[in-house]
Amino acid sequence: MANISFSRRLRRTPFSEGVEAAGVKAFTVYNRMLLPTVFDSVEADYRHLKKHVQVWDVSCERQVELRGPDAARLMQMLTPRDLRGMLPGQCYYVPIVDETGGMLNDPVAVKLSEDRWWISIADSDLLLWVKGIANGYRLDVLVDEPDVSPLAIQGPMADELMSRVFGERVKDIRFFKFDMFEFAGRDLAIARSGYSKQGGFEIYVEGSDIGMTLWNALFSAGEDLNVRAGCPNLIERIEAGLLSYGNDMTDDNTPHECGLGKFCNTHTAIGCIGRDALLRVAKEGPIQQIRPIEIAGPAVGACVAPWSVYAQGKRVGQITSAAWSPDFNTNVSIGMLKLSHWDAGTRVEVESPDGMREATVREKFWI
Amino acid sequence: MANISFSRRLRRTPFSEGVEAAGVKAFTVYNRMLLPTVFDSVEADYRHLKKHVQVWDVSCERQVELRGPDAARLMQMLTPRDLRGMLPGQCYYVPIVDETGGMLNDPVAVKLSEDRWWISIADSDLLLWVKGIANGYRLDVLVDEPDVSPLAIQGPMADELMSRVFGERVKDIRFFKFDMFEFAGRDLAIARSGYSKQGGFEIYVEGSDIGMTLWNALFSAGEDLNVRAGCPNLIERIEAGLLSYGNDMTDDNTPHECGLGKFCNTHTAIGCIGRDALLRVAKEGPIQQIRPIEIAGPAVGACVAPWSVYAQGKRVGQITSAAWSPDFNTNVSIGMLKLSHWDAGTRVEVESPDGMREATVREKFWI
Repeated sequence: MANISFSRRLRRTPFSEGVEAAGVKAFTVYNRMLLPTVFDSVEADYRHLKKHVQVWDVSCERQVELRGPDAARLMQMLTPRDLRGMLPGQCYYVPIVDETGGMLNDPVAVKLSEDRWWISIADSDLLLWVKGIANGYRLDVLVDEPDVSPLAIQGPMADELMSRVFGERVKDIRFFKFDMFEFAGRDLAIARSGYSKQGGFEIYVEGSDIGMTLWNALFSAGEDLNVRAGCPNLIERIEAGLLSYGNDMTDDNTPHECGLGKFCNTHTAIGCIGRDALLRVAKEGPIQQIRPIEIAGPAVGACVAPWSVYAQGKRVGQITSAAWSPDFNTNVSIGMLKLSHWDAGTRVEVESPDGMREATVREKFWI
Repeated sequence: MANISFSRRLRRTPFSEGVEAAGVKAFTVYNRMLLPTVFDSVEADYRHLKKHVQVWDVSCERQVELRGPDAARLMQMLTPRDLRGMLPGQCYYVPIVDETGGMLNDPVAVKLSEDRWWISIADSDLLLWVKGIANGYRLDVLVDEPDVSPLAIQGPMADELMSRVFGERVKDIRFFKFDMFEFAGRDLAIARSGYSKQGGFEIYVEGSDIGMTLWNALFSAGEDLNVRAGCPNLIERIEAGLLSYGNDMTDDNTPHECGLGKFCNTHTAIGCIGRDALLRVAKEGPIQQIRPIEIAGPAVGACVAPWSVYAQGKRVGQITSAAWSPDFNTNVSIGMLKLSHWDAGTRVEVESPDGMREATVREKFWI
């Protein structure tokens, strides 16, 4: 246990005041911004998330905005996912790759219009890559980080809470679609999305000044719903197989290694900078891949650096995220395993900080 | 006060084991890596730094390596500082700017040879900008992050400690020069540099595997010198006017606003991407600039978000770093002030979290 030293460099958010008043106990830093990690306890937060509704300050999902005649062209240069069929009002999960096919980020692309896009980023300064590419290729596009801070509403009672604040129409938003809603005289994009499998929404709060007004409106409206401040939950996101860039994958990995091959239409994604490299990967297939792995024994500690995975004394992979799951009464984990040992049912050994543990590769994530 | 939640994404360093054993109390996150901020207390660490010698884990000063025929050309594209006269063995502090002249980083460039450079970065993923530019301009250069982790030796007894481990020759290294030294069978670059004004060195530790061997060798050799684990010290760095990217400046600011005009040779820095914009800035001069500001009254708290600065009720700037200085018996701070109020001696008012404070613009930083 250690404290975090605050400074301007670890940016506060439009909702920090609310987060503090709600008794946040710990933070991580994500895109050089504070991201809460614990309010009550990771396990209590998990139980509450699965039963009620939470408001999450995920401002750290910064936006990279592309505006101008070349915006769509630039967006396609960044990803092997074919974006030609994407319509305004849609959100696509898009692997972003460099010229070797290495993952630079795994954001959600939000198509506002043909010539205006947001990329809602995971933890890397994707803005710098996009600006460099736009400059180098002399594209006719403006690239910057707008004053947009996502606020996620997650949990089974999310529809109920959101409809009280934004009206019944919010329930009509389909998964990974967004629509515009008025709040405090501002038009806000609201998507049915979020970093949990409990259902919910992400509000793209445009303009820091209305942050606390919205936060307070949500808490007032949801008092009888037992609404609480929450945050992405380590246990739930592992159960759900929601990957974390920087934890479960880095720029060493291709999308195919991350199980994101289904988001790659490399043959038709003409213009994608990593296309040549990924055509090769698509042809040969990856030799390691992310898998759900169940680790036997009592609760393991936090995975703060990769844990090696062995079979018959040989290293066959690594665990990158792990937690004890109360609902499944086992340790749930995410790891990257070699081709020879990634089949469901394969028995392996995990070198955890408190010793070797038996573990089993699963077919699917838990939820 | 809040805890920091560790995960693989907040990268550990080759020296983390030593840092923990030394009783680190708090961290910040810098380039997605753990950077210690407190061992004993910020004030006790400060007093020790000024009298003895400390070993700092500054692995978070990651390197961007440029290798290949176009390495020097690319390096010049990144900065308005004219690099033509720079020789292998030299380190240059270089503002890095985008096409509008906005600061993307303020690293130290290390010229290993004509076709091999390291950029020892401040807190932004400069790697992504450099890779984007190299790709967009089709340069013949490899850009990546090597396994190099700087370890700084700082304080008045640094020369003594370093010569015991690396030999007397280490004392011959001049300021912002480096030379190669053998340790554990490895050739390591050692520069006379560091993020304090107490004198010292930075060892570019190439290969994580020798990290703790070196750490332990330094502590064994320095026992009678009262060597301790330390870290960049908030009080000392403000007294010294050492700027912090992300705190004292962002991509909103030009080098000229940051007082770094002396590192800009914009007329002769042919090829610099932000050259057109900076020629305009150089001609007109900045309208705001970083200044040392003395804040009256008792010790102020941490500056976790900019504090507005006023004169006659009008906002004339902001404070971005502040601390109580025991040696100068006042609050020392760094701020950005408008042209109309940046002259030494100007009286202003600072909106600190505990109320308005009188403050005075200084001619120079404290040390």
